[in-house]
Amino acid sequence: VSDEPPRVAPGLLAPLFARGPVGELVSEAAWLRALVEVEAALARAIGNPDLADAILAADIDLAEIAQETAQTLSPLVGIARRLREQAGPAAHAGATSQDIVDTATMLVVRRACAPLLADVRAAADAAARLARRHRDDATMGRTLLQPALPTSFGLRAARWMSGLDDAAAWLQSVLEQDLVVDLGGPIGHGDPALAAALARELDLGDPGLSWHSLRLRPARLACALGGVSGILGKVARDVTLLAQPEIGELSEGDASRGRSGSVLGKNNPVAAISVLMCTRRAPPLVATVLAAMEQELERGAAGWQIEWATGSELLSLTGSAAAWARDMLEHLQVDTARMARAAGERPDLGWSGVLVDRAIAARPAGRAA
Amino acid sequence: VSDEPPRVAPGLLAPLFARGPVGELVSEAAWLRALVEVEAALARAIGNPDLADAILAADIDLAEIAQETAQTLSPLVGIARRLREQAGPAAHAGATSQDIVDTATMLVVRRACAPLLADVRAAADAAARLARRHRDDATMGRTLLQPALPTSFGLRAARWMSGLDDAAAWLQSVLEQDLVVDLGGPIGHGDPALAAALARELDLGDPGLSWHSLRLRPARLACALGGVSGILGKVARDVTLLAQPEIGELSEGDASRGRSGSVLGKNNPVAAISVLMCTRRAPPLVATVLAAMEQELERGAAGWQIEWATGSELLSLTGSAAAWARDMLEHLQVDTARMARAAGERPDLGWSGVLVDRAIAARPAGRAA
Amino acid sequence: VSDEPPRVAPGLLAPLFARGPVGELVSEAAWLRALVEVEAALARAIGNPDLADAILAADIDLAEIAQETAQTLSPLVGIARRLREQAGPAAHAGATSQDIVDTATMLVVRRACAPLLADVRAAADAAARLARRHRDDATMGRTLLQPALPTSFGLRAARWMSGLDDAAAWLQSVLEQDLVVDLGGPIGHGDPALAAALARELDLGDPGLSWHSLRLRPARLACALGGVSGILGKVARDVTLLAQPEIGELSEGDASRGRSGSVLGKNNPVAAISVLMCTRRAPPLVATVLAAMEQELERGAAGWQIEWATGSELLSLTGSAAAWARDMLEHLQVDTARMARAAGERPDLGWSGVLVDRAIAARPAGRAA
Amino acid sequence: VSDEPPRVAPGLLAPLFARGPVGELVSEAAWLRALVEVEAALARAIGNPDLADAILAADIDLAEIAQETAQTLSPLVGIARRLREQAGPAAHAGATSQDIVDTATMLVVRRACAPLLADVRAAADAAARLARRHRDDATMGRTLLQPALPTSFGLRAARWMSGLDDAAAWLQSVLEQDLVVDLGGPIGHGDPALAAALARELDLGDPGLSWHSLRLRPARLACALGGVSGILGKVARDVTLLAQPEIGELSEGDASRGRSGSVLGKNNPVAAISVLMCTRRAPPLVATVLAAMEQELERGAAGWQIEWATGSELLSLTGSAAAWARDMLEHLQVDTARMARAAGERPDLGWSGVLVDRAIAARPAGRAA
Repeated sequence: VSDEPPRVAPGLLAPLFARGPVGELVSEAAWLRALVEVEAALARAIGNPDLADAILAADIDLAEIAQETAQTLSPLVGIARRLREQAGPAAHAGATSQDIVDTATMLVVRRACAPLLADVRAAADAAARLARRHRDDATMGRTLLQPALPTSFGLRAARWMSGLDDAAAWLQSVLEQDLVVDLGGPIGHGDPALAAALARELDLGDPGLSWHSLRLRPARLACALGGVSGILGKVARDVTLLAQPEIGELSEGDASRGRSGSVLGKNNPVAAISVLMCTRRAPPLVATVLAAMEQELERGAAGWQIEWATGSELLSLTGSAAAWARDMLEHLQVDTARMARAAGERPDLGWSGVLVDRAIAARPAGRAA
Repeated sequence: VSDEPPRVAPGLLAPLFARGPVGELVSEAAWLRALVEVEAALARAIGNPDLADAILAADIDLAEIAQETAQTLSPLVGIARRLREQAGPAAHAGATSQDIVDTATMLVVRRACAPLLADVRAAADAAARLARRHRDDATMGRTLLQPALPTSFGLRAARWMSGLDDAAAWLQSVLEQDLVVDLGGPIGHGDPALAAALARELDLGDPGLSWHSLRLRPARLACALGGVSGILGKVARDVTLLAQPEIGELSEGDASRGRSGSVLGKNNPVAAISVLMCTRRAPPLVATVLAAMEQELERGAAGWQIEWATGSELLSLTGSAAAWARDMLEHLQVDTARMARAAGERPDLGWSGVLVDRAIAARPAGRAA
Repeated sequence: VSDEPPRVAPGLLAPLFARGPVGELVSEAAWLRALVEVEAALARAIGNPDLADAILAADIDLAEIAQETAQTLSPLVGIARRLREQAGPAAHAGATSQDIVDTATMLVVRRACAPLLADVRAAADAAARLARRHRDDATMGRTLLQPALPTSFGLRAARWMSGLDDAAAWLQSVLEQDLVVDLGGPIGHGDPALAAALARELDLGDPGLSWHSLRLRPARLACALGGVSGILGKVARDVTLLAQPEIGELSEGDASRGRSGSVLGKNNPVAAISVLMCTRRAPPLVATVLAAMEQELERGAAGWQIEWATGSELLSLTGSAAAWARDMLEHLQVDTARMARAAGERPDLGWSGVLVDRAIAARPAGRAA
Repeated sequence: VSDEPPRVAPGLLAPLFARGPVGELVSEAAWLRALVEVEAALARAIGNPDLADAILAADIDLAEIAQETAQTLSPLVGIARRLREQAGPAAHAGATSQDIVDTATMLVVRRACAPLLADVRAAADAAARLARRHRDDATMGRTLLQPALPTSFGLRAARWMSGLDDAAAWLQSVLEQDLVVDLGGPIGHGDPALAAALARELDLGDPGLSWHSLRLRPARLACALGGVSGILGKVARDVTLLAQPEIGELSEGDASRGRSGSVLGKNNPVAAISVLMCTRRAPPLVATVLAAMEQELERGAAGWQIEWATGSELLSLTGSAAAWARDMLEHLQVDTARMARAAGERPDLGWSGVLVDRAIAARPAGRAA
């Protein structure tokens, strides 16, 4: 496999839209690697480990492959031909292009979601620490952007924590359910034993039927990413509002960041705003994947290509939002004195303390603050 | 509660967009009923069954309530005032408007999803019968809208079945996880024991924390509806393609239906097309609900109202699509002779038969064809 | 034509999502009226005014028609049959269902957009008055939700004005271009002279070719509504932010409105929030109409029905947002003293005054403040 | 300006999603070039041509700049600092980051739309030639995916032509209206004479007011691209349907293309399918830009960055769809014999011929077939 091809993410805005490791893990190079690994695993599944090694050693030029895609709609046609030439005629046997792409998608998703989930969970942990630390610190509760009644900042942070934990669990449960191989062959009725063997090789599930044009799995993944993104956006929106100097209860901790280029002394909440840039792009991309479920007959005309491109973008944006949100929450500065002033004298914090304790105690195994 | 108010669904196109019982179950009357039932359950939860009875007996004029919503952003303000006047001052105690709306949403969703899921499952059952009946009937497999290789029609139907079963399971699992009360009081730190009691009264879950501005539950429901919709659309698209007279392998069974108004002898696949009308409207609505997750602080400025309206529409459209798809699959006419001709002589059906058997055997409990 | 059928808009939230006259103008009754008027105009176009009168006098039961739609995919089949029975066999001659629907759409759009545009322009006028009145009143300019540098409130209001004027002009120009008849007959090659005559009867344009499956017109209308909605949302977002009591520079003028149901003394900016409820639902609906442009061959399978339903909703939501925004801007309370304090001493207002004067002078004919 | 940075478009699928020149014209390098050109034009506008030359000669490392964006939310902060260091302290004077970005956006859009429009118009010309050549060739008209009545293939092609011409005119009119500079300075009340001078330098319009948070222009551009995309998708959908071998009336002319990787003899309509891959991703991106119109106060928190990324993608996808559609229409193979057989004996072509002639005659200046 040739050298690092260009990154998908746009360079000038990459720090905003593709922060953290996820961008690399959905790059062209990562996709190409995953595709070749699936071809190698398929060779092992048919009992040909030497072929697998030859496949992994093959020299495949990404630019050449890409050029041929214009003739075939799929980079796999070119890849498979090269593998047959370089590694042996048994390469790619029993598979159709989409088999390799669908299965490689699962490898890419698994790899990209690991750091993404780690960042969401670290953000939840940071929120849990805020919840515990500020369990009894009064703040003004605000509804419809208006001060309403006092509550505790710890409870607000516990809600962030709970939302982030819940979103991570959503994505985790989809990964546990949907990371499966696809191996139906040209028309989807290939040998199920081969699919099962491929699944074992790659430590993926066996779906029973090929899902060439049954796209619930990509849809569920896109939805879970949309949900993670939605919660990240909610937390970031709260931070931008509370960081308004007229409220002034929160600020981002990295003092070297956020200085305005044109206004002296202004300090923008860079992390929170970057989260919002990412999360606001996500919902329409989920709609794209859902709309792409209408795939014709045995294999659709414009299906997995749309999912590949849109799903990569959704992973990269959600991963970036998670990285920014973790940074934001881990360095958040809380002005409890100002919060207390806004909450007024003898604020009634209701059951806040108990609710915080219970929420922390109810966290997923091993994650109490 | 006053007489039946107007239906949400547009009358002239209601047979297309709001077929079946779901439309009624998300109507204005259904919402009002659910809201009042939550208020009554809250009265029982505080140990006041007489108040609950009085609440259920109260006379509430939907039009009057609606008028006041323009002053308050929430019909609950008007409803709560009337309940206090008519049933007693303890009505609505401990709750904020959104508590009642969020909890009533869950009642509405539970009621609407019952027939919706029944229709999806009946459609899956019909597909299972097709799969079994046509287990060994050859058909031309088509990829990218081009004939590719022969396969069995039974396997195609088994895939429809599998997709429909899987989509139903998705929605079912969300219902099992997310049907919970919301009872946080004005600022979200109310007595958790009261929330638990309300949950018991309504046979809903207890979320631990109020979710006034943590909107993963509505998002997950919307996503699952989007997924159900996506699979229904996939099956319907297949039927419209195979019902093209030039292919002519399938037709809708109801001969009195689909006659063109302007072209004699033409017979449109009305059910399949109606499914597509509904399912193509769904993905952007899911995006609306996901985008609405960015709700500010303790309660957002424009949140649950967007979810109420959009969610009702999504339920109604998905329910209509499910009713149409069930009708379509239960009455599908299969021209096996024409399929066989297109498949050619001695078609190789690969592992089709085994795959059909395994797919049917793997169906959820008690649903084998 | 029978009595008033049910409104499309949901009753309990109708004051939020369907304020003002537009909701009625896209109701079932309004659509049915427009459909019948087009049939009558067609009768006049073929030189049969008596038939036209008989058509207008026909008794058509909306519920009956709706029922038949389930057999035909189009309410026009039932309407045309009744008109032939009641008014004469020449009714509907030369037209296909979609001809009548497309042309009636244009009547509905024209009627609905009149008050919608009037509200947008009245909102722009109110902004123009604010711009003039506060031409030299300092306020703190805010970027990225942070105070940046002083500017004038007049200039901020002038920008609202300019945006609203520009959005109205966008919609107006689409109406001028796209309000045309459609009359192609069953397969789209009907007599162009008849289409021209129908256009004269209805004071609509003549498109040259029937646009049964060429959907640029509905797309342009949806886009313009999305643009109007976007600007209304921008202005409303500004008001919600400046109405935060911690900033406290603006408030909505109607003191009887916005009182919280659960928090004494709280005053929610009801109009601004209602605008946002509407405008945030618009962009995905525009996407629905754009995606629906992919209509097959001479007439698509699931086309105009999606546009009818989605377009009605988009009109109603944008109309409601416009009505709320007009109310908001016409009654806005400006606290210039508080603005001045936030702007600091001797604020540099740059070219604000000149820019306000020029912007007002550049308004469309006759609309200077 | 340093060497070519990585392309935005994903390499392996770039031939599908980024065919033609538009991808390059919205690449990172193209954006950086446009940003620097605006800075140089600003130097000329303040009467300092030497500074402009020095700006154009500056050495700016894209990777370095990108790194700083993580601190500032805008690559312009880093660019401006380097220009001040390398070209002189007067660089970037009077401008804020977003001024340069907004104005550079217009340069990028102008450059990207030139080949995009050329391809749409060439596709329309190809359709016009088909219309003229097949003016009197009968074909079966198809509605709701069912054969309906005969018509002429020339009329179908004339409709494609008309839709493509109309879409091109839409985009053209937006370019004529909306290609303007933005130069408001840090808070939007800068010297209007300087904006006018910058406009003259760049041959762009003068908007009167800065549009930092008034986003009708990006919205109108996105909508027009969505409209162009919608028509391209419509034509491509028609081709995929008529290229089904069971209908077999059209095929793509490039015989070396579209051969299946796994099925011998199969020939996929690669160009038509590639168009659909692009066009189905467009509508949700339009929704993203419309939703991003809700930008706060003087400058929004997450605004232009979303437009930059989404708009670049929309341009690239629409440009790719246009390049594919042109290729598809310029090489379309028409089987008139098969069309004639499907149309039956003595088909009534109605006013088809006249309609074709009139449609061609009504084309924009100089484009008759």
